Amino acid sequence: MLGSTHGTLTTDFRARVVACGEEPRAAVHSRATIAPEGDLDVSGRPLHAPVPDLDRFFRPESVAVIGASDTEGRPNTGITRQLTTWAERVGARLYPVHPTRTSVFGRACFPSVAALPEQVDLAVLLVSDPLPVIEELARAKVRFAVAFASGFAETGEEGAAAQARLAAAVERSGLRLLGPNTNLNAFEEFRDDLEGPAIALITQSGHQGRPVYTLQELGVRLSHWAPTGNEADLETADFIAYFSQRPEVGAIACYVEGLKDGRSFLLAADRAARAGVPVVAVKVGRTEAGARTAASHTGKLTGADQVVDAAMRQFGVIRVDGLDELQDTAALLARARKPQAEGVVVYSISGGTGAHFADLATGAGLHLPELPADKRAELHTWIPDYLNVANPVDNGGHPVGDWRGRKIIDAILADPSVGVLICPITGPFPPMSDRLAQDLVDAAEATDKLVCVVWGSPVGTEDAYRTTLLGSSRVATFRTFGNCITAVKAYLDHHRFVASYRSPFDEAPRTPSPSFRKAQALMRPGQQLSEHAAKQLLRAYGIRVPREQLVTSAAAAVRAAGLVGYPVVMKASGARLAHKTELGLVKVGLTSASQVRDAYRELTDIARYEDVELDGILVCQMVERGVEMMVGVTRDPLFGPTVTVGLGGVLVEVLHDAAVRVPPFGEEQARAMLGELRGRALLEGVRGGPPVDVDALVEVVLRVERMALELGDDLAELDINPLMVLGRGQGAVALDALAVCR
Amino acid sequence: MLGSTHGTLTTDFRARVVACGEEPRAAVHSRATIAPEGDLDVSGRPLHAPVPDLDRFFRPESVAVIGASDTEGRPNTGITRQLTTWAERVGARLYPVHPTRTSVFGRACFPSVAALPEQVDLAVLLVSDPLPVIEELARAKVRFAVAFASGFAETGEEGAAAQARLAAAVERSGLRLLGPNTNLNAFEEFRDDLEGPAIALITQSGHQGRPVYTLQELGVRLSHWAPTGNEADLETADFIAYFSQRPEVGAIACYVEGLKDGRSFLLAADRAARAGVPVVAVKVGRTEAGARTAASHTGKLTGADQVVDAAMRQFGVIRVDGLDELQDTAALLARARKPQAEGVVVYSISGGTGAHFADLATGAGLHLPELPADKRAELHTWIPDYLNVANPVDNGGHPVGDWRGRKIIDAILADPSVGVLICPITGPFPPMSDRLAQDLVDAAEATDKLVCVVWGSPVGTEDAYRTTLLGSSRVATFRTFGNCITAVKAYLDHHRFVASYRSPFDEAPRTPSPSFRKAQALMRPGQQLSEHAAKQLLRAYGIRVPREQLVTSAAAAVRAAGLVGYPVVMKASGARLAHKTELGLVKVGLTSASQVRDAYRELTDIARYEDVELDGILVCQMVERGVEMMVGVTRDPLFGPTVTVGLGGVLVEVLHDAAVRVPPFGEEQARAMLGELRGRALLEGVRGGPPVDVDALVEVVLRVERMALELGDDLAELDINPLMVLGRGQGAVALDALAVCR
Repeated sequence: MLGSTHGTLTTDFRARVVACGEEPRAAVHSRATIAPEGDLDVSGRPLHAPVPDLDRFFRPESVAVIGASDTEGRPNTGITRQLTTWAERVGARLYPVHPTRTSVFGRACFPSVAALPEQVDLAVLLVSDPLPVIEELARAKVRFAVAFASGFAETGEEGAAAQARLAAAVERSGLRLLGPNTNLNAFEEFRDDLEGPAIALITQSGHQGRPVYTLQELGVRLSHWAPTGNEADLETADFIAYFSQRPEVGAIACYVEGLKDGRSFLLAADRAARAGVPVVAVKVGRTEAGARTAASHTGKLTGADQVVDAAMRQFGVIRVDGLDELQDTAALLARARKPQAEGVVVYSISGGTGAHFADLATGAGLHLPELPADKRAELHTWIPDYLNVANPVDNGGHPVGDWRGRKIIDAILADPSVGVLICPITGPFPPMSDRLAQDLVDAAEATDKLVCVVWGSPVGTEDAYRTTLLGSSRVATFRTFGNCITAVKAYLDHHRFVASYRSPFDEAPRTPSPSFRKAQALMRPGQQLSEHAAKQLLRAYGIRVPREQLVTSAAAAVRAAGLVGYPVVMKASGARLAHKTELGLVKVGLTSASQVRDAYRELTDIARYEDVELDGILVCQMVERGVEMMVGVTRDPLFGPTVTVGLGGVLVEVLHDAAVRVPPFGEEQARAMLGELRGRALLEGVRGGPPVDVDALVEVVLRVERMALELGDDLAELDINPLMVLGRGQGAVALDALAVCR
Repeated sequence: MLGSTHGTLTTDFRARVVACGEEPRAAVHSRATIAPEGDLDVSGRPLHAPVPDLDRFFRPESVAVIGASDTEGRPNTGITRQLTTWAERVGARLYPVHPTRTSVFGRACFPSVAALPEQVDLAVLLVSDPLPVIEELARAKVRFAVAFASGFAETGEEGAAAQARLAAAVERSGLRLLGPNTNLNAFEEFRDDLEGPAIALITQSGHQGRPVYTLQELGVRLSHWAPTGNEADLETADFIAYFSQRPEVGAIACYVEGLKDGRSFLLAADRAARAGVPVVAVKVGRTEAGARTAASHTGKLTGADQVVDAAMRQFGVIRVDGLDELQDTAALLARARKPQAEGVVVYSISGGTGAHFADLATGAGLHLPELPADKRAELHTWIPDYLNVANPVDNGGHPVGDWRGRKIIDAILADPSVGVLICPITGPFPPMSDRLAQDLVDAAEATDKLVCVVWGSPVGTEDAYRTTLLGSSRVATFRTFGNCITAVKAYLDHHRFVASYRSPFDEAPRTPSPSFRKAQALMRPGQQLSEHAAKQLLRAYGIRVPREQLVTSAAAAVRAAGLVGYPVVMKASGARLAHKTELGLVKVGLTSASQVRDAYRELTDIARYEDVELDGILVCQMVERGVEMMVGVTRDPLFGPTVTVGLGGVLVEVLHDAAVRVPPFGEEQARAMLGELRGRALLEGVRGGPPVDVDALVEVVLRVERMALELGDDLAELDINPLMVLGRGQGAVALDALAVCR
């Protein structure tokens, strides 16, 4: 959890950064306020992301180019030339290294790393196999290396093995490596004439990062670009953690194909969330096809997309689909100050534009408050009475051509319900749009509130757009309604998220609960547990199951029914038994000893006939009707154990109406899961029926989460289905459960 | 249904138009092949859209400006000036009309319409109240008028009444009116140096049409712009019908806030579908807020959004959300030739870009076929072996810099599975992207297949983009992955739709079925029917209901149970009875005379206690279990009766999982409705269970459609819920029904 001092600083700092330029965030990011890095949770996973010191990686004072060349036509020549130019620009000392050359581009060339005249900060490896060089670099105390070579994990098994060897050598060496399969994007030219908070960029593909880099030509500042390639050592998470501590970084933009490790990504996102630095990400893998293609590009796991999506949301990472959305959202989040209100006002010279924009914005979940009567009256002093000014505000066109235009904008911005003013200008009409653009820029300079413009002309060479609007760092300018809405939604969501963020890692269990020992005794490595054993596992974690007894004779069944209490349910129980209902292996509503005897005979007959191995027959208490839900644990290849809740019974299979989370998470997220279900109204009571015990359902989700955390990788799968959620105050009962041990 | 000649021509003509320029479509659009306009369906609704002759509206030879002015500062002066310039440019004769002026901008001014020297084609009304002028115009045999004045339906009830008076005067007069509340967009400057099929634009707001108009600056031809305003007379549908018959129109782009009449819109869309002309539309009203704002702008109905959406899809209208999508989709559909295959290949200089694009494209439903082995081998003659060329094709960058680049593009286009090649260029890198752009343009000139480029740089002033790509009318150039995917999907969908289009209006019933007379006898105007009566209505249309009898004594109930056959269900029946289950007014599984007697007493007791008026107790056959669905009829304010099918029972309320259609529609659409349900897997059999009788369900939907068509406005609401759909070949039974007469 954020300490109170920490929290106050976090919510305030973005405004400060904007106001004061690059004031260091020391007070916020002091390591002293963060728990020690060795700290582990109950499953042995780390609770804090390491923050590598990459200052000298991005701003090296000395660079060795291993495999430097100036022979025309060789690929290494172009790279050497680019590095030479870069070194001259930033004032770094550059040393070409090549076994046979004496000079490269007029500079003295060194035969080996050992022969270098100083301990260099960075070595750029242009050799086809970087592995043999690593040890040499370590001996020379080089701090960072970049490996260009491809042919590693992206090419298949053999390449993956080579990459593993490279990674092991790097780990032994103590240096930090970027790549392999990467490039020079980190050492491109960054404009230093732009002010204010910057975007820091992380991409697993150079071409895919180019549009964000190019934003500099539109006046958006970029501070760093980390092209992570195959991530044999340094990974996306390392850069997120590092950038989130840099004072000049206003937002982190990522293009991610696959993640090296789910946990390290979440821990880095947690660092960013604590620091209040937004992370905006494109993550490939919405479809199977995309996931496969991505894997063949950088050789990384993509994870189940629903899990990736949920994990990102849990930690406030803003996921977008297109590179255009990545640009627009990151640029807005980097530069905009903290919102002063959640209300959005749409202001336009056309009622049609206002209606259209309001429709899309409301549909996306933005809040467009109706302006109060006195504000409307004020606006009507400049806008004809027959026009709608309640929000959207339609000025009818003419007032923007004179002094009234600025008055209207200021009046809207002065309303306390308004945090964002959006002005969509779909058609450039210089007599109106030029002045409107200038008024918006001037008004934005005079307010702390967010002013957005959508310049809807497909041409984009107009002066009002290029000079007036893009010339202002205070107006956020978009080209489409859609991207403006996506970005503004992300902006308001981010600040709301950060304001109430409590790191689940601070509250994650570090030591096993008393339940854990009981549970361990029940686990059978590599086996599926019987229903009875699975239910005992649930009981160990305090999850209610029906009164039940496992019996192996008809007489025992009758005795058990007497103890459990009529009416009873009888079910076959066996370690490899699923879909009991379909096999006829469940009998409900048995009200007498004779019915119990008959049922016992029938169930064992069916089991024999179906060749099902039983460990007995369960005689269970019959539970009153409620809403059937399911709660379960599944292992994701990237994130490990995940917790799912959804509609139960047959519906879960037909409708796939389920929500998922990656532990650790708290009660708030457990409740949010229920809110994501399409069938959530079932919990609120249908057709005037009473609501069910949602608190009990949430409690089951949290107990299952605890189980997932403590049993960790030993629990391959858990499926409580149905979990019968009874009326309010009546609890929830696990009627059936399936558990598979690893 | 399309005749065979007609059909062949329709599927071929788009290629012809592109190939031959503006060859008239006479053979396709000959009125002789279309049924007469007076043709009506069984409910008295027209079956064919009138096609107004608007040639002289868009290209008038003579124009009168009523209320012309040249006094600086008056709004009418600007409009008069614009019209004068326009008339000079197109060579039209322009006559200023004003009661007191003798000349306007140096032209002789006429005191009244009656004084005009000729019968003018078009009168532009700049007067604040156009009503008194209408009769005068009619006497002078003016064919068309445009009314600028606002203050009509968009302002509320009083304005709506004034608009109704204006509309009535126009109808009496015989002239056709555009407006009121419109502008001069129809008489803007259209570039005449652009070739190939054009976009025709229809908008209910001038500002909202501007971006599509501005596409001309990017080389996209625009032939017409109809700014329809309040649509007192001429409406969106009239322009769709007219444009779909114009040989130069390749696609119709619409911005629609509300529709004047649902039926006329669908009939116009039908005309466009028959002619194979795509209609792309933004339709405001996704949200309540948007619908309200739109209504206050042009005073029209928006309709329930789900119904609008379905109706558009039924008739092939492509609905998009943003103006940017409207531009990109309309431009592609106007200019691209008929696809030769459905396969899409993504070609890129970066594996990352390919993976990302493929992920989004596959997610949107595009088909990315794996290229065959021989094609991959061919591509590997120019592309290094370690790169993926199966689709997406990753060339690794270098081959685009030399002669190999064009070879690769041609080789991909030559594959028979490929209909579309998409090349996303996210980063401009002139040594590569300039040549790549030129190669794509050259290749596109040499093929009939579609070549698309996404120019991902946010700058957009690059030569390769502005000159090379936009200079080609054969390459479709986009700025975002998302818009490219939306447009290509719409392009393939449109051609698939048109190829198999059979107009439902050709097959709509013109005369009542034998069922109709039986049904009429059961209708009770203004009343809700009892369950028993509603079921008789269903029986009249051949929809199966359980054997049942309505009884009013316990003894009669026992007799009825004997006739119906045990076990029976008993239910209270009454005209204003709903939610019987919740009230305890349903008893199931009664197996003996004594149980029937008890149930009779209990049901009548509850009814008395709950103060429910009964017409008796229904004794019904108990129907075996199946899948519970619902089928119903609802009246939409815009489109009239609509037919809905969805999951039945309690689920329909909780999950809102239902699909809707506007009659008339055929079996194919009825099946498509089931495909839209999230819970459609229920129909295919759950957990290995047998599939249900989908044919019977489709048959019920079609019978309900017939009922909706024949009973028309007399049936306010019908709700069959549950409709129990039994196993395959077993049929479907309406277990409960609610019907409300108007």
